[in-house]
Amino acid sequence: MTAPAAIHPLDFATRLDGDPGDPVRRGHASDAYWAFIGPFGGALAATVLRAVLEHPQRSGDPLALTLNFCAPMALAPFEIATRLVRANRSTQHWSAEVAQADTGITHTATLVTALRRDTWSHCPAEAPELPPPQSLSRYAYRGAMSWVERYEFRFAQGAPELTEAVPEPPASARSLLWINDAQPRPLDFLGLASMSDAFFGRIFQVQGRMLPFGTVSMTTYFHASAEEVAAQGTAPLRASVDARVFHRSFCDQSGELWGHDGRLLATAVQIAYFRA
Amino acid sequence: MTAPAAIHPLDFATRLDGDPGDPVRRGHASDAYWAFIGPFGGALAATVLRAVLEHPQRSGDPLALTLNFCAPMALAPFEIATRLVRANRSTQHWSAEVAQADTGITHTATLVTALRRDTWSHCPAEAPELPPPQSLSRYAYRGAMSWVERYEFRFAQGAPELTEAVPEPPASARSLLWINDAQPRPLDFLGLASMSDAFFGRIFQVQGRMLPFGTVSMTTYFHASAEEVAAQGTAPLRASVDARVFHRSFCDQSGELWGHDGRLLATAVQIAYFRA
Repeated sequence: MTAPAAIHPLDFATRLDGDPGDPVRRGHASDAYWAFIGPFGGALAATVLRAVLEHPQRSGDPLALTLNFCAPMALAPFEIATRLVRANRSTQHWSAEVAQADTGITHTATLVTALRRDTWSHCPAEAPELPPPQSLSRYAYRGAMSWVERYEFRFAQGAPELTEAVPEPPASARSLLWINDAQPRPLDFLGLASMSDAFFGRIFQVQGRMLPFGTVSMTTYFHASAEEVAAQGTAPLRASVDARVFHRSFCDQSGELWGHDGRLLATAVQIAYFRA
Repeated sequence: MTAPAAIHPLDFATRLDGDPGDPVRRGHASDAYWAFIGPFGGALAATVLRAVLEHPQRSGDPLALTLNFCAPMALAPFEIATRLVRANRSTQHWSAEVAQADTGITHTATLVTALRRDTWSHCPAEAPELPPPQSLSRYAYRGAMSWVERYEFRFAQGAPELTEAVPEPPASARSLLWINDAQPRPLDFLGLASMSDAFFGRIFQVQGRMLPFGTVSMTTYFHASAEEVAAQGTAPLRASVDARVFHRSFCDQSGELWGHDGRLLATAVQIAYFRA
């Protein structure tokens, strides 16, 4: 399923058939955002988000999205069932499940949306210091995961690098980079959700080699309003990512995505399986 | 509902009636773990965790727990419905909903459990440097939230402090502390789940005052096996907590809980509402 030229690949990958108010909508996994054995998690997160954001009952901007990876998804149609569990004055709680015909449920998700009033604002975190994007070369990827080609990565620190042997001590898990869509696309929450998973598994980084790896659960917090996100246009985002621990088959990851105006747009954590 | 002397208050707060294999089990909110307008989120997280851990179909240790706070809970009975959505060779995906008779659904949750094999292990994160707990005085709390009395907090940095006026610039959102159950309780995943929410809202810290605040969604990742958690006994845990942003009614929080043996036991993020 290749996107028509007039549609951005992310919009094609996240497209959903049927009436936006239907409790179940149909999509199709996209070979343009493919990872090892299934779709790139960021594209799936964006698709679940889209199902909720398009729903006529939805109010507010996305605040918190948790996506659990229950089973591998095939390059085939899928269904997303969404349910508005609870609506309060300023927040809505949604639950979602993604399923495929031969597999059953592949993903579960919860999403909180919220009306974000203009209140006291304070950002103790600081955007990473990076040289201008033009001064850094684009990461040249030679692997088989198509999703990587959908982005331009310009690493200032911690570019993915395969080494002859596992370094001792292990390499730093931290990366600092610019990221933007390879085919320009004005930033919105879908783009942000997808980018919040667009960090290479930290285990590859610290071990300098590829090995079996898969995200088990990820949570993205959105820290900006729709207008503040839209104000980023197609400019590259500053990003930082790190891991705290690799232990007993699982490792974590924390990332930040910053706008060109110094605004923290999203933070994301995930826990992933690895075999090493 | 006060705990009998023979039962630890956390075990009493998280107790569930009925057969552990029932799809719906009944509990009761505990006034021993009470916050502003509802139960302390950590006790609720521990209760949901308990419903799954006690279930006869459960295998593996908890890995990722997300709890969404949909509506205030009354000091009254509640029901927890759990569902094993998907079981693979090494992981299980559970969904849960908590409800009260007059309110409907108050919380949604997802929980991943996993068999944690003994693999390559590496911890790039470092435990915070803290003076020995005996050298720090116990935080003297004079407020109305009973849950705070269930813990001993020994702050090395960032103890909650109310000031005359909002400091300018705002105070640091970072706290470093020792934490343990006031009434000793050997550490297990329930204790860890509860402690992963036992950080005072960062907005109080940075503004030096109390204001309307409530967690909207929290996610805890467990990084140790049951044996590694049990090995902590009743020793205080090292903890660090910080926030990245307060913006448009919502703020985030990230915390770490470390064992006395230098092991990272759990990390937790949350996003919370504030009015300021």
